[in-house]
Amino acid sequence: MATAAQPENLSLVVHGPGDIRLENYPIPEPGPNEVLLKMHSVGICGSDVHYWQHGRIGDFIVKKPMVLGHEASGTVVKVGSMVKHLKPGDRVTIEPGAPRENDEFCKIGRYNLSPSIFFCATPPDDGNLCRFYKHNADFCYKLPDNVTFEEGALIEPLSVGIYACQRGGISLGKKVLVCGAGPIGLVTLLVAKAMGAAKVVVTDLSASRLSKAKEVGADFTLQVSKESPQEIASKIENLLGCKPAVTIECTGAESCIQTGIYATRSGGTLVLVGMGSEMTTVPLVHAAVREVDIKGVFRYCNTWPMAISMLESKSVNVKPLVTHRFPLEKAMEAFETSKKGLGIKVMLKCDPNDQNP
Amino acid sequence: MATAAQPENLSLVVHGPGDIRLENYPIPEPGPNEVLLKMHSVGICGSDVHYWQHGRIGDFIVKKPMVLGHEASGTVVKVGSMVKHLKPGDRVTIEPGAPRENDEFCKIGRYNLSPSIFFCATPPDDGNLCRFYKHNADFCYKLPDNVTFEEGALIEPLSVGIYACQRGGISLGKKVLVCGAGPIGLVTLLVAKAMGAAKVVVTDLSASRLSKAKEVGADFTLQVSKESPQEIASKIENLLGCKPAVTIECTGAESCIQTGIYATRSGGTLVLVGMGSEMTTVPLVHAAVREVDIKGVFRYCNTWPMAISMLESKSVNVKPLVTHRFPLEKAMEAFETSKKGLGIKVMLKCDPNDQNP
Amino acid sequence: MATAAQPENLSLVVHGPGDIRLENYPIPEPGPNEVLLKMHSVGICGSDVHYWQHGRIGDFIVKKPMVLGHEASGTVVKVGSMVKHLKPGDRVTIEPGAPRENDEFCKIGRYNLSPSIFFCATPPDDGNLCRFYKHNADFCYKLPDNVTFEEGALIEPLSVGIYACQRGGISLGKKVLVCGAGPIGLVTLLVAKAMGAAKVVVTDLSASRLSKAKEVGADFTLQVSKESPQEIASKIENLLGCKPAVTIECTGAESCIQTGIYATRSGGTLVLVGMGSEMTTVPLVHAAVREVDIKGVFRYCNTWPMAISMLESKSVNVKPLVTHRFPLEKAMEAFETSKKGLGIKVMLKCDPNDQNP
Amino acid sequence: MATAAQPENLSLVVHGPGDIRLENYPIPEPGPNEVLLKMHSVGICGSDVHYWQHGRIGDFIVKKPMVLGHEASGTVVKVGSMVKHLKPGDRVTIEPGAPRENDEFCKIGRYNLSPSIFFCATPPDDGNLCRFYKHNADFCYKLPDNVTFEEGALIEPLSVGIYACQRGGISLGKKVLVCGAGPIGLVTLLVAKAMGAAKVVVTDLSASRLSKAKEVGADFTLQVSKESPQEIASKIENLLGCKPAVTIECTGAESCIQTGIYATRSGGTLVLVGMGSEMTTVPLVHAAVREVDIKGVFRYCNTWPMAISMLESKSVNVKPLVTHRFPLEKAMEAFETSKKGLGIKVMLKCDPNDQNP
Repeated sequence: MATAAQPENLSLVVHGPGDIRLENYPIPEPGPNEVLLKMHSVGICGSDVHYWQHGRIGDFIVKKPMVLGHEASGTVVKVGSMVKHLKPGDRVTIEPGAPRENDEFCKIGRYNLSPSIFFCATPPDDGNLCRFYKHNADFCYKLPDNVTFEEGALIEPLSVGIYACQRGGISLGKKVLVCGAGPIGLVTLLVAKAMGAAKVVVTDLSASRLSKAKEVGADFTLQVSKESPQEIASKIENLLGCKPAVTIECTGAESCIQTGIYATRSGGTLVLVGMGSEMTTVPLVHAAVREVDIKGVFRYCNTWPMAISMLESKSVNVKPLVTHRFPLEKAMEAFETSKKGLGIKVMLKCDPNDQNP
Repeated sequence: MATAAQPENLSLVVHGPGDIRLENYPIPEPGPNEVLLKMHSVGICGSDVHYWQHGRIGDFIVKKPMVLGHEASGTVVKVGSMVKHLKPGDRVTIEPGAPRENDEFCKIGRYNLSPSIFFCATPPDDGNLCRFYKHNADFCYKLPDNVTFEEGALIEPLSVGIYACQRGGISLGKKVLVCGAGPIGLVTLLVAKAMGAAKVVVTDLSASRLSKAKEVGADFTLQVSKESPQEIASKIENLLGCKPAVTIECTGAESCIQTGIYATRSGGTLVLVGMGSEMTTVPLVHAAVREVDIKGVFRYCNTWPMAISMLESKSVNVKPLVTHRFPLEKAMEAFETSKKGLGIKVMLKCDPNDQNP
Repeated sequence: MATAAQPENLSLVVHGPGDIRLENYPIPEPGPNEVLLKMHSVGICGSDVHYWQHGRIGDFIVKKPMVLGHEASGTVVKVGSMVKHLKPGDRVTIEPGAPRENDEFCKIGRYNLSPSIFFCATPPDDGNLCRFYKHNADFCYKLPDNVTFEEGALIEPLSVGIYACQRGGISLGKKVLVCGAGPIGLVTLLVAKAMGAAKVVVTDLSASRLSKAKEVGADFTLQVSKESPQEIASKIENLLGCKPAVTIECTGAESCIQTGIYATRSGGTLVLVGMGSEMTTVPLVHAAVREVDIKGVFRYCNTWPMAISMLESKSVNVKPLVTHRFPLEKAMEAFETSKKGLGIKVMLKCDPNDQNP
Repeated sequence: MATAAQPENLSLVVHGPGDIRLENYPIPEPGPNEVLLKMHSVGICGSDVHYWQHGRIGDFIVKKPMVLGHEASGTVVKVGSMVKHLKPGDRVTIEPGAPRENDEFCKIGRYNLSPSIFFCATPPDDGNLCRFYKHNADFCYKLPDNVTFEEGALIEPLSVGIYACQRGGISLGKKVLVCGAGPIGLVTLLVAKAMGAAKVVVTDLSASRLSKAKEVGADFTLQVSKESPQEIASKIENLLGCKPAVTIECTGAESCIQTGIYATRSGGTLVLVGMGSEMTTVPLVHAAVREVDIKGVFRYCNTWPMAISMLESKSVNVKPLVTHRFPLEKAMEAFETSKKGLGIKVMLKCDPNDQNP
């Protein structure tokens, strides 16, 4: 039968550790304040690969099948009865976290901390690596004509960088250290420069990652291996001519966090983006007496509008981050590619009729 | 005699309204915490021309002869006994305001508000449009090798832009309105873009000024004439697609301040840089109920280090602002040129042996 | 017939200028995220009186009958299907502004600026001066056992003071000027002291108002009459021993706003709470060059939780503000009393079975 | 001879571990920007005792004899040639840290981070536990008539509390956890309440310390012993009815820092005041993902003016903190008392003619 041959909502579903499957899900019906989207481009994030490999991240455990994907953009095909700002045909970028309640955190503008927030592809909430997906309309934002779907999907990782740089207080003329040259390190670098950072040094173990960092705008790169955190801090100071005012730590490695504390100038800020083990041993008193503030980030909030403005005005160029593309049907192959750490960002194309960027 | 023929410290001195003279002053001796500088490049500011034309600016009155000039750079030729961070031969940029006392304003980091501050070419304090000048060493900053003396001199007007943008809270992705396309409007535009502003619209009466604004990076320009403030505000909203989050008012005109209030989005900030008449009639309640904060700037503080970093890292290009150059001996001609409003910035070259930028 | 004699939802309704009526309204049915409340205490605000007298405030015009009242507390009698944090019998205080959409202002935590916000007794939205009223459950907050209904109702005016003091940056050891000793001036005084303000001076035309200010904690009071703003500013400086760091202007009078500019210390803040005429003539340049920031307030946001905490911990005592009480049936008399400016706060008691504070 | 028998400047000097001596020092001569003070009251701080017992604190090592004492007040007896704001006879409180250079940290208002700062009784800088002492005049502040010398001396420990509470963002209606009920914990408690904190819970190992905390205003106290950090965090949440928004950690113990991380609410702040070992093992990721910012304090800055205002307006009562008094001649006995941890604050009286508070 024709309908059986043509799946109506092909979705990439994780069932448990090592078990992802392409399955046919029903097309959802949007509620009053929701929109139904035809998905276009969805990037694979390290967390998607981690749920596939381990079935969990910390306390978030895949207990029932869950659709993956949260770096996404698509086209509105249907709007709920109360939706005013969107209409069918609108190209949108999706903010994956949408609060369920207007609680104390939402009211003060820090909705990312709301404990009951819906978040795509965080158990038990389904993501949007599929053909059709419904989402809270308030967290779907129209894309300007000169911003592509893939740029729209890349707003999610870009937001991590934006929020980390904001929390770090990066501004005009500041010197910055970014630890780690993976996708998050690179977007952080891009954002720091767009905010007016004077000099950014990026560290990593891998020379090839660092050469990518150099390519997208790092003023200095530093390949680290067996040096002590103090030694690395000293090298960074030599490169910049002074200690960095802000360090954005994107690896989660204990030694890098230690480096961040030693490296950052007195009165500066160390932002923890990378997630490491539960307990960490750090020279806390060294941070405290020099008033190096230590701030974490949980995802992001209020970044979409500014990210769209940045992309529209070409203040930042994220296009070079996409190194691989696969149609949704080849999601397995795409995940294998992402797992191997080849390239930077692997993009899945969910619309069989439009595989353009 | 040779020494009589060669004036030891040629200085441009204002004696009263309409009366500026090139005179020979003694070379000063630096105190323990001062440095003696051989001046290189000094820009002419609107305030210099104003003191020449009117002998006063508000309550600051030229009561005795005063050397003009406060946008300056030069070379250290002698250091006071307690100076550690500078030595003869160092190329420096001069921050013209140097507090005389460590008062309550200095202690909290707002030294520009210190009532007893020394400030070049503000009566009764002498400026540095001369061959040799001594200054508080803490407010002389070394120029990196890749920053020219003229860039060093331009840090002063650039600082007005930096400080105004900081007070306005300009940051990544914001839409900005700059009223006025004179030198201060242009540096404000440059800084706003360097801070990541997504779109900047610049308004002015003059088409030629606006074309300069376009040239140095304005996303939109708007020539205004007889429209009401509300009409102009509406045009700005149409250009940007929304109200600007920040307005930097650089003209001092009452109608422009009114425009700034109507134009700025709720919760945004209007920064007053231009100085107008003593009393101003404004729709204050319109600002209040939309929480448009109104903030003035008095010169600047803590801008030199970041300005140097920006120039060193080429985050901002101020070189196109210099449109005229004159040797110090032709200061009268230079002031006439500046008065006529030709070009943007007129630069005086104080070192007879080095007239390079 | 008994039901005709006993109105089921007696409500105070304004029909136009000079026309308020006690009418019987139907008891509303709460929606999924709403609660139905049995009203207990509702304070009369100057704006209620203004709508009665003039049928409008600025652009807000009474075009159809509107229930008055927005300083209120009551008891939950019914909860919507999605309400989790409240249950029938809970005593609650009502935040009258509840956003209708999760727009850009809500997302950043400034929901009071949301243009589509619902607000009790602001046309066309009905208030809660009635027997039964339904409200967004997220904006109803449980009262601690040791906080009375009247204190709960007074959180609304108290919030104006809290928000104004927050916007002004009042903190430990600061000197503060409050212009106006009406209800808002008094709550501002109370809050400023609770925040640790060292000295507060209150000004007013009326000696009796000032004696009330003295009674509730003003360190100094100053009765003003025909002095110039500069003269008053000078007297304030003499009283405090220095200029106040923060001025909270609660009158809206042009001369008081001018006084606020002259009086506030350099680098300080003038908060505009009182609403005056559309255009105001002020010494703006005097504020600008001394970096006295001018900030308005539009109602308040995020004040309820902290106000409840303050009342629970007895950090502030608002009880003396209630000077008159009337049962809802005598609302006309209560409004006449309020209009005459007798006392401070007139409280209406909406529950015929419990007229206690 | 009489003059030999009567030492002109009796001073308490530490020579090395376990070696403090009362010695006769010459009376110093104030420089141009200094004042000579006749000392009145000097409190003993834990750091004074530590230098006596161990001859060092971290990298600060007593390499040559050093006068102890830095919590001090006295009377001006002589002023330097450039001093304007003080005159002989003025009663003053001494801020012990006075920057030597106007460096980048001073300019931005964070002078406590200046690496070359002078600080009383931190090697190699002499303190003021003596009869006569000279100090930078800018860091001597006149005492109001209604503030005693001892209150003036207590401004130093009070400043630690003020600065910690400021860094933590304590404000109106917030719930606060203070770890440790020693002198710093107690002043922190006092300041937190003065800033409007709604509820403060204080933890300690010692029941007697906690009863003192209760006496000076703690809303709750919690005696801790062998519970895990998570268990203690849970008890604190139960006491307050919610997690505290701010935790001020005053012990330096690893387990207390861990408690602080678990206890503080998402989006809140943990301030590290107590100093522990060089490396600390903490659940950093737990802080990061809940955006609990971790901030240290290095002494304080800009606290004296507000502390004086607070004491003048009686917003805070520090008098109960003084439990012991000794004349300077009995300094040894005073230090023994302090070492034993008896009472809270031991005060030395340096003026033989005035031993009043």
